[in-house]
Amino acid sequence: MSLQILIILKYFILLFFVIAAGLSKSYAQDEDALMIKKIHDQALGNGQAYPWLEDLCLKHPGRIAGSDAYIGAANFTKNKLADIPGISSYLQECTANYWNRGTKEIAWMTTDGKNNIPLNVLSLGNSVATPKDGIQAQVIEVLSLDEVERLGRENIEGKIVFFNRPMDPTFVRTFGAYGGAVDQRVYGASKAASLGAVAALVRSMTTSQDDHPHTGVMVYKDTLQKIPGIAISTNDANRLSEALKNGNVSVFLKTDCKSMGSRYAPTVIGEIKGSEYPNEILLVGGHLDSWDVGQGAHDDGSGCVQAMEVLHILHRIGYKPKRTIRCVLFSNEENGLAGGLTYAKISNEKKEFHLAALESDAGGFSPRGFSFEADTSVFKTYYKNVSQWLPVLESYGLQFEMGGSGADISPLKSQKGLLIGLRPDSQRYFDFHHTAVDNIDAVNKRELELGAAAMASLIYLIDKYGIQ
Amino acid sequence: MSLQILIILKYFILLFFVIAAGLSKSYAQDEDALMIKKIHDQALGNGQAYPWLEDLCLKHPGRIAGSDAYIGAANFTKNKLADIPGISSYLQECTANYWNRGTKEIAWMTTDGKNNIPLNVLSLGNSVATPKDGIQAQVIEVLSLDEVERLGRENIEGKIVFFNRPMDPTFVRTFGAYGGAVDQRVYGASKAASLGAVAALVRSMTTSQDDHPHTGVMVYKDTLQKIPGIAISTNDANRLSEALKNGNVSVFLKTDCKSMGSRYAPTVIGEIKGSEYPNEILLVGGHLDSWDVGQGAHDDGSGCVQAMEVLHILHRIGYKPKRTIRCVLFSNEENGLAGGLTYAKISNEKKEFHLAALESDAGGFSPRGFSFEADTSVFKTYYKNVSQWLPVLESYGLQFEMGGSGADISPLKSQKGLLIGLRPDSQRYFDFHHTAVDNIDAVNKRELELGAAAMASLIYLIDKYGIQ
Repeated sequence: MSLQILIILKYFILLFFVIAAGLSKSYAQDEDALMIKKIHDQALGNGQAYPWLEDLCLKHPGRIAGSDAYIGAANFTKNKLADIPGISSYLQECTANYWNRGTKEIAWMTTDGKNNIPLNVLSLGNSVATPKDGIQAQVIEVLSLDEVERLGRENIEGKIVFFNRPMDPTFVRTFGAYGGAVDQRVYGASKAASLGAVAALVRSMTTSQDDHPHTGVMVYKDTLQKIPGIAISTNDANRLSEALKNGNVSVFLKTDCKSMGSRYAPTVIGEIKGSEYPNEILLVGGHLDSWDVGQGAHDDGSGCVQAMEVLHILHRIGYKPKRTIRCVLFSNEENGLAGGLTYAKISNEKKEFHLAALESDAGGFSPRGFSFEADTSVFKTYYKNVSQWLPVLESYGLQFEMGGSGADISPLKSQKGLLIGLRPDSQRYFDFHHTAVDNIDAVNKRELELGAAAMASLIYLIDKYGIQ
Repeated sequence: MSLQILIILKYFILLFFVIAAGLSKSYAQDEDALMIKKIHDQALGNGQAYPWLEDLCLKHPGRIAGSDAYIGAANFTKNKLADIPGISSYLQECTANYWNRGTKEIAWMTTDGKNNIPLNVLSLGNSVATPKDGIQAQVIEVLSLDEVERLGRENIEGKIVFFNRPMDPTFVRTFGAYGGAVDQRVYGASKAASLGAVAALVRSMTTSQDDHPHTGVMVYKDTLQKIPGIAISTNDANRLSEALKNGNVSVFLKTDCKSMGSRYAPTVIGEIKGSEYPNEILLVGGHLDSWDVGQGAHDDGSGCVQAMEVLHILHRIGYKPKRTIRCVLFSNEENGLAGGLTYAKISNEKKEFHLAALESDAGGFSPRGFSFEADTSVFKTYYKNVSQWLPVLESYGLQFEMGGSGADISPLKSQKGLLIGLRPDSQRYFDFHHTAVDNIDAVNKRELELGAAAMASLIYLIDKYGIQ
């Protein structure tokens, strides 16, 4: 062949590959767009997430790990997973420290020695009870742990320390505001105890001004006296603060909560084996336990039914995964992370590899995107690869960012897979978080469904293309 | 000078401008980011939008244009605008057709001639009443206007036509689903009347399954007999449809609504004159009228207080606008658009120029971005210019798109300015739209505030840089 012909041939071969690559790329993109549309149609048109959440909330409210309600919820979700064709489900053994709120929580404030004004309070999780006849003591208001330190034993001893630094409402994302205030709830009682206080009252973790106290975990230092840690509603925190400006205020507190030791609280698992790479696990999850008050609708019933719905959607649209997709409903996220730690331990012992783990634990609100993290040795590659799919997900209002994923899946980081958090709109989350009003009527069906569809879409893409 | 020196000099001059442009660009971006942070801090930390909305909803509910409630709302908002330093406010003369729901709306269905099952209904806006003693007639279910046509007079005459095509839940954006179903509400009665029907019952415009009927505007053809148009709740529509499958069903309807003619219903205006370009108007607005049921919290109390809040925020952060910023709370959007049409007419007569008009009329939910439209002769330039600001707004979760703006501002299109719609998350909008439950408790304070902050941010950028 003459050189000219060779050059022309080369040109045509090159042109062929360019066109073929272009076609195949656009075909793949169209195919993905079509599949993601199917996923959304299924979730919005024939989804199971909301009816499952209704059952979970109404039949198994207050699912604190170790409670009978928790066991009921575990069996319910295990059975619902088993009902999805192709899914095998089981309970993974786990024990968790069980804390019980007891039967009474009484609080009032007395101003000028005369008015007993009732206060809306909830013991914090893990708190000890007050003495049997309650505590009455003067109150000192502080805005930080450091302030307790500065005030010193002479101002703290014998008093109830009232931690009243509000969540900063100017954070656009409410989790940032939560992170900036929650040290008071977790460590306030121990800090106060270290200088001789008799109890800690903590302003509820919310930017909302209302009458609902917010419980949540607190931690004791073993070396210190344990004093009660108690949440007070924001409205009552404002009233108490106002009263303190006008004179001496004492508060009476009476609770009978206690830690009950270790109890059975299994993690729920449902999975479908991958057809090509069964050893690459894609985990979708939430945590099944809630606090004992309310129905745990947003925290984290929503995440659980969304994770279940991922399996249900993929079944209903007839998608056969190449990789193993495993739905994990973790135990005891709220009060020790026993479920997440046990799961990772067993997984490591079995030498499993989680290529990706996606947790929904920020409420059943309209999805705004995903947050990604991984071991630094692999993060860049993973993030570059998932970023290719942004255009097709962006049209559903989803954005990608680097950041945290979820508490339950974080112990899997050492497996060097990609850890992912669903990021729903955060504006309403702390209106309900850890309260008696985190109930099914606070969850919008479509918002919940869209979160499940977003999760299923990302899992589909990771399953189809991998990320390595 | 030698050529070499000239070349070096030229290089340095070029370098100088590149660096200067870079610095000034980054300085401007930083300044904008700082200002937009200030706007958000003000809205979330010290905003007035929510307390204003509480007053508007609780003291002036059911603000249908022409009603006393509407007049109360107009005076209330005019006074609140006047309270903002630097703002002059006034009422713009406007008259609107006033329709009154009357005193009774009774409906039931009778299956197999025996059970009278009550139905949740609301007359559609502009509907005539039933005859004084009501109507009882057999029901025929249809899914479209075309189906009525196909069925013909022999199947329609003397019957109540039941339009039951649901809003398609698989639309991710609910307004798309609304657009695909609302022809039944607007034109159903006239279509049915054209073939001799005695009334039209229309499935409520919502994807939610509940007991709240949704009212809304309907239009008669002048050449045809006017028959009542009545909305039925989705739950009752499902019941009625089910009953029709099992046999003959008749429905009884009794209403006494009527059109009352033209009444005073002013548009409310508050403005601050621009310091450099007072003749370039930047309009922010919503519509002050609502339907007569409910408090009009999302539709469109939210848009009104957000527009007012733009002026309040700019005042509080000490921003002096170069252009005239005008807050307009339009009259009668729901039932004829008298406010928007009158406003544009007067503006054109005065030879005003609205460089931009931004309306919020899609609920007080978390803002997801803005939608832009303009006359084709100017759109490309405007859109290119606003798109430069996307990076700074994107970090607040805001996206830009081409599309519709708002009904009230649409008559301004001929002025060849930029028309903009705030685009909040749409998932919950049709749970409340035109119902008795569109109340203040359905509005989240932070979501409302973020919408106002998004509007103020965009108005600040347009004011500072222009778009031409």
